[in-house]
Amino acid sequence: MSPNFIHTYVSVDCVVFGFDHENRLNILLVERHLDEAKQIKLPGSLIYSDEDVDDSAERVLYELTGIKKMVLKQFKCFADPSRAINKDDIKWMDEEYKHHIDRIITVAYLSLCKIDHKINSTKYNTVNWFPIHEVPNLPFDHNKIIKESLVEIRRWIEIDFSIIFELLPKKFTIRQLYQLYSALSEKYIDIKNFHKKISSFNYIVPLNEIETNVSHRAARYYKFDAKVYKKNNTKLIK
Amino acid sequence: MSPNFIHTYVSVDCVVFGFDHENRLNILLVERHLDEAKQIKLPGSLIYSDEDVDDSAERVLYELTGIKKMVLKQFKCFADPSRAINKDDIKWMDEEYKHHIDRIITVAYLSLCKIDHKINSTKYNTVNWFPIHEVPNLPFDHNKIIKESLVEIRRWIEIDFSIIFELLPKKFTIRQLYQLYSALSEKYIDIKNFHKKISSFNYIVPLNEIETNVSHRAARYYKFDAKVYKKNNTKLIK
Repeated sequence: MSPNFIHTYVSVDCVVFGFDHENRLNILLVERHLDEAKQIKLPGSLIYSDEDVDDSAERVLYELTGIKKMVLKQFKCFADPSRAINKDDIKWMDEEYKHHIDRIITVAYLSLCKIDHKINSTKYNTVNWFPIHEVPNLPFDHNKIIKESLVEIRRWIEIDFSIIFELLPKKFTIRQLYQLYSALSEKYIDIKNFHKKISSFNYIVPLNEIETNVSHRAARYYKFDAKVYKKNNTKLIK
Repeated sequence: MSPNFIHTYVSVDCVVFGFDHENRLNILLVERHLDEAKQIKLPGSLIYSDEDVDDSAERVLYELTGIKKMVLKQFKCFADPSRAINKDDIKWMDEEYKHHIDRIITVAYLSLCKIDHKINSTKYNTVNWFPIHEVPNLPFDHNKIIKESLVEIRRWIEIDFSIIFELLPKKFTIRQLYQLYSALSEKYIDIKNFHKKISSFNYIVPLNEIETNVSHRAARYYKFDAKVYKKNNTKLIK
C-alpha cells in the first residue's frame, strides 16, 4: 500500500508590524465572524492553484488590508498536523471557503509598515493595529506564528540595522528608537549605554528641532541617513 | 462559483553543503532512475499527512543519505505553479510515488556537513558530493533552490561568522578558510586583506603545526575557538 502522502490546502498569513504613537510595537489583525462571535486573527487566506506563494501573499494582504507595494518577506512554512483541528476554526473555514478543509499548511510572511499607512479592506470591516503585548489568544497557530516572526525580525535587524527605521517616523527621538529596539529585542537594555552607542553612529543625524507640546523635557529629533549607513556597512566578516 | 483553491502535495528538499579536500564548496545529490536514464537531483521526498515539515525533512534526509542529527534549517517554500510540469519529472513522480502528482510545492532546507561524514542511503545506490560549480541542469526547480540557498547561507554567515567553521576540518589553513569564504561570497576578495582581517580575530587561533606533504610552502594550521568567539560576539546594534 502506498504511504499516506499529504494532500493539502495552502494559505498565506501576513504578520505586519507597526510602531504606534505611544511607542509600542503593534501588529495588524483582522476580525473574523463566526455565528454571533467575533475573533481577531492574522490577515491570511487560501492560495489559488495557479498562484505562487509570494504573489498570493501580496494579493491577500491587499484584499484584506488595502496595503500594497509593501515588502513582504516569506519567513516560514507552518505545517503542524494539529494546527487547524479546533472545531471553531474548521467551522469558520467551511463557511469562509465553501470547501471542507481537512488539512491546511500556511506560509507566513513578514512586513514592516508605517502605522499611519492607510488601511482599507475590501473584505473585513474591522482591521486594526494591536499592541503586541495585548494580543489575545488567536485562532489556529497564529500566536505561535507571531512569536516566531519576532525572532525573525530580530535576526533581520542584527543583519541590517537600517531595517528598524522602516518602522519609525522620518524624524524620531532617541527614546523612540530605544523603545522600538527594546520591544524587538525582548530583553532589558540600559538606556544610557544605548544612547552612547547610538551617538557613535554617524548615520543617525541630529536635527535642529526638538519636540513640542510634551510634558517631559523636550527631546531632540534625529533622522536616519541611508547613504551614510550604506557606505559604512559594506559587509565582510565581522 | 468558489475559486480554484490549491490542493497540493508537499515535499521537502534538502540542500546539504560540504567543503572538499580540494577546497571546493560541494553539494550532496542523489541519482534518480527513469527508464534507462539516470539523473541527479536534490535529496527530497513527499511528506506524510500526519507529519510536520521539519520532522519530514529530518526523516527524508536520513532515508536518502543516512545523515541524522544534523542541523537542518527551513529556508523557503517554493510553489511556482510551473515547477513540476516537465514530462520527465511527472513520469518520475508517477512511478516513484504511485500517485498522480498534479501540483507539488516544496519546502527547502539547508544544512552544513563535514565532507567526511558517512553517507549511507537506504534508498539510492548513488549519493554523491558535487562541486557547486559543476552541478548540471537538475530536475524541477532544483537549480533555483540551490541558487537561493547560497544567498541564504551568506546571510547566515553575515549574522554569525562561526557557522563557517562547521564546514571546515578542525584544523585548517587560512587559505582553506579564504577559499571557503570566497566560494560562499561569490565575489572576489583580496587574499592579503583577508589575511589581515582574519589575524585580527582572536578566536582564530594559530597552532604549533604546519602542513606536511605539500608541494607549495607549508602553511600554518589554525583552529576556531568557539568560547572566545561567543564572548566577543554578544550581539547588540552593529
